[in-house]
Amino acid sequence: MRISELSRRSGVPVATIKYYLRENLLPRGEAVSATQSDYTGDHLARLRLVRALVEVAEVPLSRIHAVLAAVDDPGRELHTLLGAAQYAVTPQFETPADDPVWQRAEHRTDELLAELDWRVDAASPARGGLVRAVATLDRLGSCPAPEMLHGYAQAAHRAAEWDVSRIDPDAGRADTVQAVVVTSALMGQVLTALRLLAQEDESARRFG
Amino acid sequence: MRISELSRRSGVPVATIKYYLRENLLPRGEAVSATQSDYTGDHLARLRLVRALVEVAEVPLSRIHAVLAAVDDPGRELHTLLGAAQYAVTPQFETPADDPVWQRAEHRTDELLAELDWRVDAASPARGGLVRAVATLDRLGSCPAPEMLHGYAQAAHRAAEWDVSRIDPDAGRADTVQAVVVTSALMGQVLTALRLLAQEDESARRFG
Repeated sequence: MRISELSRRSGVPVATIKYYLRENLLPRGEAVSATQSDYTGDHLARLRLVRALVEVAEVPLSRIHAVLAAVDDPGRELHTLLGAAQYAVTPQFETPADDPVWQRAEHRTDELLAELDWRVDAASPARGGLVRAVATLDRLGSCPAPEMLHGYAQAAHRAAEWDVSRIDPDAGRADTVQAVVVTSALMGQVLTALRLLAQEDESARRFG
Repeated sequence: MRISELSRRSGVPVATIKYYLRENLLPRGEAVSATQSDYTGDHLARLRLVRALVEVAEVPLSRIHAVLAAVDDPGRELHTLLGAAQYAVTPQFETPADDPVWQRAEHRTDELLAELDWRVDAASPARGGLVRAVATLDRLGSCPAPEMLHGYAQAAHRAAEWDVSRIDPDAGRADTVQAVVVTSALMGQVLTALRLLAQEDESARRFG
């Protein structure tokens, strides 16, 4: 297909596609004349993935190259490919040195993950995000009880089972990673909004 | 107490307290000399609430006054006070006119809320956030199945029950609203991080 059709089918403007080509986020098409190239379904899948990373997950260009390299590495099995995608789209927080509140939050987080028996890497940026939120709650004198964290973990795992059940292990790798990026970012917004609506419902039942 | 002790007990720097006094976010203390004022426990509770709104929920000053007015209005019952606090800390999105994808998302959202039988106001900004996320998913060709939205809603309600169970209806109104603001913002970050960790666990079990 020509670049105009690639644009129409992906919803990405031609000028943006040319920018992605210049930044090596999209491989060049096969030249069919001095001014025209031919693009395939692989280009379309790759373009949808880049758009999801840029527009939906707001990942900086430097990290997008790492995700694309993982997609293109045939030696990477699905689980570690999904991990590379998720880690790239998750904000990273630095660990403050010698902060007793942070260390306490880290201890509580690791204790929780051990009790849950979840198979997660200690380097996961989501673990860092959890430690950070627990440390801030502690600092504000609002530390949640262990039972509340367990209740939250059960709710989170229920949502995550739905997320992972949507993954088709036989789809193309670019399509699979695109789906993971979109689901992680947008279904996260869905869960956040539903929790606020559920709070209103629960407050109406208790206090309304 | 003097302003220095108010600062020590709240963790808010004296300069910031003086700024809040100038912006009428904190009522003046009782003057005990030409340069010194006396502050009470009510000032401390109000200061903690303002800090939570500014630092944790990142609410603009203009909206903070609306929350404080609701706290100070004795005619407001607890449920609508909590609603005012939650609506103030939730981002608002404008409804695009005549967008068929948005209208479809709005229809799906209202159908879901009706099926769930949740008691929520149509003006809730969280409803707008949900419509927006569903519309973006639709635009990207990744619309979740109704069963997935119901699964997510159950997970969200479970977390919300924990949130509301933490509210002490007999606490002071400023303390109650402070707890709601902190819980809404930071336990939202906890849920987001736990969902990502649960995805990693679920992916390890299925594909690892």
